[in-house]
Amino acid sequence: MTTPRPHLLAPLRIGPVTLPNRVVVPAMVTRLSGEDGHVNEAIVDRYVRYAQGHVGLIVVEAMAVHSAKSGPLLRISEDAYVPGHRELVRRVRDTSDSRIVPQIIHFMKVARSGWRQTIDSLTAVDIDQIVRQFGDAARRAREAGYDGVELHSAHAYTLSSFVSRLNPRRDEYGGRSLETRLAMFGRVMAEVRRQVGADFVVGARFLADEMIKDGYTVEDAKRIALRMAQLGVDYVSLSVGGKFEDAVHREGQPLYPYTGYSGDRCMPGDWYPPLPHAAYAAEIRRYVRAHGYAVPIVSVGKISDPADAERLLETGQADLVGMARQLLSDPDWVRKVETGREREIVRCIYCNVCKQLDENFREVHCFLWPKGARQAPQPESAGEVPSWPAGGAGLTVDFTKGWAQLKWNEALGGTTGYDVYRAEAGTQGVTASGCVAAVKNEKYRDTAVLGGLKYTYYVRPFDAAGRAGPPSNAVTLELELAGRTP
Amino acid sequence: MTTPRPHLLAPLRIGPVTLPNRVVVPAMVTRLSGEDGHVNEAIVDRYVRYAQGHVGLIVVEAMAVHSAKSGPLLRISEDAYVPGHRELVRRVRDTSDSRIVPQIIHFMKVARSGWRQTIDSLTAVDIDQIVRQFGDAARRAREAGYDGVELHSAHAYTLSSFVSRLNPRRDEYGGRSLETRLAMFGRVMAEVRRQVGADFVVGARFLADEMIKDGYTVEDAKRIALRMAQLGVDYVSLSVGGKFEDAVHREGQPLYPYTGYSGDRCMPGDWYPPLPHAAYAAEIRRYVRAHGYAVPIVSVGKISDPADAERLLETGQADLVGMARQLLSDPDWVRKVETGREREIVRCIYCNVCKQLDENFREVHCFLWPKGARQAPQPESAGEVPSWPAGGAGLTVDFTKGWAQLKWNEALGGTTGYDVYRAEAGTQGVTASGCVAAVKNEKYRDTAVLGGLKYTYYVRPFDAAGRAGPPSNAVTLELELAGRTP
Repeated sequence: MTTPRPHLLAPLRIGPVTLPNRVVVPAMVTRLSGEDGHVNEAIVDRYVRYAQGHVGLIVVEAMAVHSAKSGPLLRISEDAYVPGHRELVRRVRDTSDSRIVPQIIHFMKVARSGWRQTIDSLTAVDIDQIVRQFGDAARRAREAGYDGVELHSAHAYTLSSFVSRLNPRRDEYGGRSLETRLAMFGRVMAEVRRQVGADFVVGARFLADEMIKDGYTVEDAKRIALRMAQLGVDYVSLSVGGKFEDAVHREGQPLYPYTGYSGDRCMPGDWYPPLPHAAYAAEIRRYVRAHGYAVPIVSVGKISDPADAERLLETGQADLVGMARQLLSDPDWVRKVETGREREIVRCIYCNVCKQLDENFREVHCFLWPKGARQAPQPESAGEVPSWPAGGAGLTVDFTKGWAQLKWNEALGGTTGYDVYRAEAGTQGVTASGCVAAVKNEKYRDTAVLGGLKYTYYVRPFDAAGRAGPPSNAVTLELELAGRTP
Repeated sequence: MTTPRPHLLAPLRIGPVTLPNRVVVPAMVTRLSGEDGHVNEAIVDRYVRYAQGHVGLIVVEAMAVHSAKSGPLLRISEDAYVPGHRELVRRVRDTSDSRIVPQIIHFMKVARSGWRQTIDSLTAVDIDQIVRQFGDAARRAREAGYDGVELHSAHAYTLSSFVSRLNPRRDEYGGRSLETRLAMFGRVMAEVRRQVGADFVVGARFLADEMIKDGYTVEDAKRIALRMAQLGVDYVSLSVGGKFEDAVHREGQPLYPYTGYSGDRCMPGDWYPPLPHAAYAAEIRRYVRAHGYAVPIVSVGKISDPADAERLLETGQADLVGMARQLLSDPDWVRKVETGREREIVRCIYCNVCKQLDENFREVHCFLWPKGARQAPQPESAGEVPSWPAGGAGLTVDFTKGWAQLKWNEALGGTTGYDVYRAEAGTQGVTASGCVAAVKNEKYRDTAVLGGLKYTYYVRPFDAAGRAGPPSNAVTLELELAGRTP
């Protein structure tokens, strides 16, 4: 079955290069690098895999423009790092016409005591140095053969702290007005352009909403995006939250900026609705377009369905769609859309195992990959298509304690997991249906069912390539409504 | 100029009564009551004022169903409180056909140390008692002559803590499934109906999104609303946030649940966009309607413009619009809409002075009311219409430090404040214009201006009744864009 996605698969010019389609993998830490900060084989494999899947724009995980200590993290702070990056770029270019840029970052110091350095401690000399470090890093990115760079002005890091509504400084880089909050970004952008010239992509990532107490909202974000457009940024990529201000300190660990509510919002889990943040991108795009700027806007946040992605583009809510966790789960997402195999996409279930691995400084992989895999499985590595044993799937559903408990038989073939499908129906018929979870073992507990409604379940086994076996038997459960007054 | 608002001014049947229009004043603490919990003259005046302004549904501030200590707070926990409420209802009925219900609340103990009691400490006996207390309170509300009651199942209070995704209990009222989280509400609802019968409005207020780490989102809220509809709730009123989990403890003060990020979201300030939460109500309404339930949904959150309110209703995003701070600022909002005087509405500026007064246990008034007023001014109390002195308004705008500094002359007549109007224009013309602030003194600092754009400002004096004087001279400022690379 071929599903044409004309907007999603349309090329897009950004600065001097053309992306083959509208799909972006945003910067996502892999924890595959050593403390030395050099590109290694595992990192090359990770990004080549996205190129193989034909992702339009690959943004390589944040790499430091400076030499501050920070566990396993890529670096671009010295010329000695360039050869590694050059090899990474070469390998990606050998794979497909995916475009590739590194995200470059400056961050402040954090200590295991919970202490963290804040931007009000930066002197004029420090600021000049950071500006130069961004410029030098961008120049190195160009030397390495990247298509551009992305300036990290989001989450809990230095540039974002200047743009923040909580910027504590009182000087010309300070928090007393939007203009002064934007001054640091303006200097960095000018220095980067000075070093790389006009014919090199310079993108920027920033927050559509800080999602913290007294933080800025989309009202400021509209104007921040406009400023970036005024400064000649080639694309803006949005995110939300991920701040230090509400982070939860773990004894003896440096503060991790995705442990508070703003972290929930940054990487919304399975209890969030799909596309929880798309409206921000749409609002920002509308505002920037009304000012006559065509800068492409990357929308992000629990986008996984090609139909949703297509609609965002078709209705002018975004120019590009960013998917981090979904592309980690299935780097072949674009290829499958291109070849009419959308049903084979291994859908991210937003379990955030990847987030937990990052938080614990462990190599980031996807929970849905085969056990022990360091990278997403190759399409051709799949063996026999999943099937049910002779006795069938034997799905049963039990509802006794306020939740639906599903159990079924183990499937055969190359089965790596199961998709759980549910239809919810009331007196007016089915109101919601679709895949509600993917699990590795033969059981699932659905805690979101409501008495008075009717639920129908089935499960399907899938293999590492996303190929699905036949659906199980379907089980329907009509739940009584307890406690209703007669 | 008459502006018809057919949807906003249409009556609506809820349960056995008919609201004269679609405007609701949600429960808003006044801190006008003494520690004794009885209705007093100041409280009567506050609610009569809303009736005078012809608010469709007046929800009287939360009153305790139990006798726990909690500073100045209304009570309905004993029959002795009924006469005071009867008098309040009588006075409202004498004023207009506004309908009136009290919000009834149970809350857990809090201490000045920051300690708070949580629902896992409640025994089966405690739970039975709380259920009965809600029923008894509802019965007293009926005896007092109210049109109904609203069950407070929002924010940081007992019923909401059961519904919460963070409900820590493990029993049949516990957090392990949505059904068990809803069990307590189900029992309360059944007991309330048992005591008041079917011909009495029973509304409920709950959160469309908890806005805290690991809290529930609109995905659960849809089903919570459906359950309320299944149980025969006559209207559901939404809010968001306002939780203890992220509250900031002030030394020696009991925890106040509006001091964290979820508090920001609950009462979004002037840096939030208009209608930040309307999409939640729309989503919930869509879901409940798809299940065949017609229960009216109250949308809330920075609604102040009659055109916005009309649109929410017209497009099926809500059945009723709730405005707390806007109706505090101008209880005559509905009357002014009815009589084509929308321009005279004293627009809430979301400065949250009212919120700060509440937090400090001080009488809640509006910053835009005349100095020292305990209640909103009467329409007929206005004297001479504001005007400018002989030399004119003399508005000047200075832009030197990254913000626009406005100054102007003092206006004459009954001037109580000034509206500041701004148009923002880029190369494509004006992209945004409107009133950006209301201030009491003759100066304003606009910190959200952006270099590269053109701003035009004027100010208008207004009096306590919202009558505006003539606009000042207009001043246009073309800001240079600093830092742009050539």
